[in-house]
Formats: sequence, C-alpha cells, structure tokens
Amino acid sequence: MTGTDDAALRAERSDPNTEVAVLLHDGVTALVAIGPYEILGGMPGAEVKFVAKAPGPVRTDSGFLSLTADYPLDNVPEPDVLLVPFLGPAAMGDERLLAWIRSAHRTSRWTTSVCAGSLMLGAAGLLDGLRATGHWVTKDILESFGATYVPDERYVRQGRIVTAAGVSSGIDMALYLVGEIAGAKEARVRQLMTEYDPKPPFDAGSAAKADREVVELAAARYRGLVGGLSAERGARP
Amino acid sequence: MTGTDDAALRAERSDPNTEVAVLLHDGVTALVAIGPYEILGGMPGAEVKFVAKAPGPVRTDSGFLSLTADYPLDNVPEPDVLLVPFLGPAAMGDERLLAWIRSAHRTSRWTTSVCAGSLMLGAAGLLDGLRATGHWVTKDILESFGATYVPDERYVRQGRIVTAAGVSSGIDMALYLVGEIAGAKEARVRQLMTEYDPKPPFDAGSAAKADREVVELAAARYRGLVGGLSAERGARP
Repeated sequence: MTGTDDAALRAERSDPNTEVAVLLHDGVTALVAIGPYEILGGMPGAEVKFVAKAPGPVRTDSGFLSLTADYPLDNVPEPDVLLVPFLGPAAMGDERLLAWIRSAHRTSRWTTSVCAGSLMLGAAGLLDGLRATGHWVTKDILESFGATYVPDERYVRQGRIVTAAGVSSGIDMALYLVGEIAGAKEARVRQLMTEYDPKPPFDAGSAAKADREVVELAAARYRGLVGGLSAERGARP
Repeated sequence: MTGTDDAALRAERSDPNTEVAVLLHDGVTALVAIGPYEILGGMPGAEVKFVAKAPGPVRTDSGFLSLTADYPLDNVPEPDVLLVPFLGPAAMGDERLLAWIRSAHRTSRWTTSVCAGSLMLGAAGLLDGLRATGHWVTKDILESFGATYVPDERYVRQGRIVTAAGVSSGIDMALYLVGEIAGAKEARVRQLMTEYDPKPPFDAGSAAKADREVVELAAARYRGLVGGLSAERGARP
C-alpha cells in the first residue's frame, strides 16, 4: 500500500480516537512492547498498529518468539501515540527508523519509549537537555545523548515525551497514559481488567534494592544481551 | 515434522535444562503469555517453545497483533513447564488442546496457568478439589470445575500445579517459578534485569481496592471480551 491508499482506508474506517504505533524490529524485547500494548489497546477507541520497516514477523531477542508487524513505516506516518520499545543493538543506528521516529514525533500527541528504547529517542535527537529514564544499565549511553537519567522513577514525563524505565515499567507508564488520554476512571478500569495489583515474591526490582552480587550479575548479563550498544552512540545525528 | 523427527532434532541440540511450553491459540491475551515468557525465557538453560495446533501466527484477542507458534502440539509432548494462558472462548472446548494439556501434565515438573487459562486446566479435569485462582471475573466458572477460588493471591500453588490470577499476575508467578527452578538469586537477577519494581499510578488492581463503579465497568467489559465462556462449561470431561 502507498501512503495515499492507507489514507483512503483510514477514511473508510470508523474513526479511531487514538492511533497507537508500536515500533518493531528483529531483536525486540517482547514484554517491553506487549506490556504497554495490552494496557493501551483495551482503551475504548484505541487502535494499535505494530509497524516495522517491512510488514511481517520480527524475532524477539530470545529467539523463541515472533511478533508480527502489520504495517510498514510509511503507512503510519502520524500516530497519536508513538511507542518505541527496546529493539536491540542492530536497530540503534538504523537511519530509516530514526527518521521515522523524528517525523512521527512532529505530530504525535505522545512520544514514548520503554527500557533501552529511550536510547533510540536519544539517537533521534529528541532527548537533548531533557530528564529521561530507560533501562538502568544503559544510564551512561542515555546521558551521552544529552539527557539526564532519572533514577527510581518508573517513567519520566517531559512535555509530550514520556520515557519509561526497564522492561516491565511500560505497564506503569501505559496506565499513566490511559489516565491522561481517557481519564483516571478508564485507567482504573484497565488496571482492574488486567488485575494489575503486583506483589513480586522478591524485592530486587531496582539496583538500589538488590544486593551487590545480584546487581553485578544482572548488569553483566544485560550488557551481554545488548552487546555493541555503546558502539552505536555515533548514530546520534 | 513428525514426533520422531523432533526427537532426533532434540537429541542433536545442546540439552536444555528447562523446556517451557507456552500454549497459543487465536484469541490469546498477549500479556498473559508474554509476561511469564519474558521472566522464564531469560533463565539460563531455559528454552521456551510456543506451541499450537498448527505452527504459524495466532491472532491476539484485540486483533492488533499476531504471535507465532513455532511448534505443533505433537512436537512438544513432555515439557518441563507447561504454561496455559487465557486463549479465548473458542479454545475452551477444544478437545485436542485439552487432551494435550492432560498428557503434558502427566510428566511436567510444573503445570501452570495465567488468568482465565485456569479454566482450561479446570476443563481438562486438573483442578477438581484444588484451591486455585484465575481472572477475578471468572471465579464462578472456575469453581464449576470443582476448584475453590482463592481471592487476593497473585498465584496459588497446589503441588506442581500453579495458577495465577488475572492478566499481569503471570509475571509474579514466573518469578516464583524461577526461584523454585533456579534458586532465589537467579529470580532476583531476572527481577532486576526486567526492572520489575512496580509502582502503578493508580490503586485499582483488585476488585477489593477499586470502587464499585470501576468494578462494575471492568466486569461488564471483561465479560464482553470472553463472551460465551460460561456456555463452554460443558467442555468439562
């Protein structure tokens, strides 16, 4: 489809109130994308579009699963909500993805990231001079893009840009966004429908809470997963 | 592939320590499957296999996304960990799925469900006389299978069967399972890697905490999503 065909299709549809674009690429961390999708996608009037450079399946970081992007980038040029998950090191320096992020941000109501997805917002030049968060292990890379990393927050809002912390934090951020978009009552309905009343059986969810050995193991393992990430800093425009 | 081919493939592979089978079907609620996958799949030695009646994409309940099942049921007959997400009403009475669940349960180390997935364990005859949980709206259906619904718990263990509450609770359950399978230190590493230090911006995650209007709206909306579910009680063997 061309952009024009897509515009025609959109005109035929019942008008969605909130178009949410979730960017995908081989190497995506599934929960980073799926947590916010689940919360936002159940909001009345929401339409979630998974987008990638080419439509079709993308493989997650573990290699165990594929998620399907239904839309190519060009068909979703002006989402209301732009969500950038962590997409793996290969996506970081991809100029087509960065150009789409910059362009979509011009008209978005909300431009958001989860986990190391904030590094792509940074690489796209959107976080310079802003407070932001992301995966705790990637703090230094995030700050290399001119952002100031905020610890101990699940998400940080600066105007219409919201960055969330590591992997699971996108659920908290998405509830906040539902509250802003559709009101607090709707956010509470989504929270109750998804029975999000978390009680983790351990208390090691932040570097401040976990003991030193766990912090070192987690940091080393995460760095192994995102290998080569720091080498991509040159992607900054 | 036949079962024999798969056995040969498995013999060729480096032996995984923990084979996790996640059952999929059109209508699956994505976060119900992806939360536990993300936690369990990062455990050293874990191999997660998404299984369905036929390999290929399945569409999630929202219609916005496909997840890909790489394996047909017959190729994963004896997983160490069996995980049954909520798969939608159409799957509930599907005798092939129920037969696979019963068979896999004979040799599993852990048989688990998340959200209304516990209704499929119930329909397979595995919960009769046991304490269990599931999505709070499906309490009565769960109890029609002979289970006793336990409120206010994120997951309930009975021997090697663990049932988790609604949608998001599978994350808590999976951390518990990692602790049991690989030890508390590894569970803490997984928690920190996924930065699971939840701080929901609202406090309406259980029916006991939400106000009456929110409870009624959430129950009505959830019943709409799982329409026809109660009519499937006859699937009980």
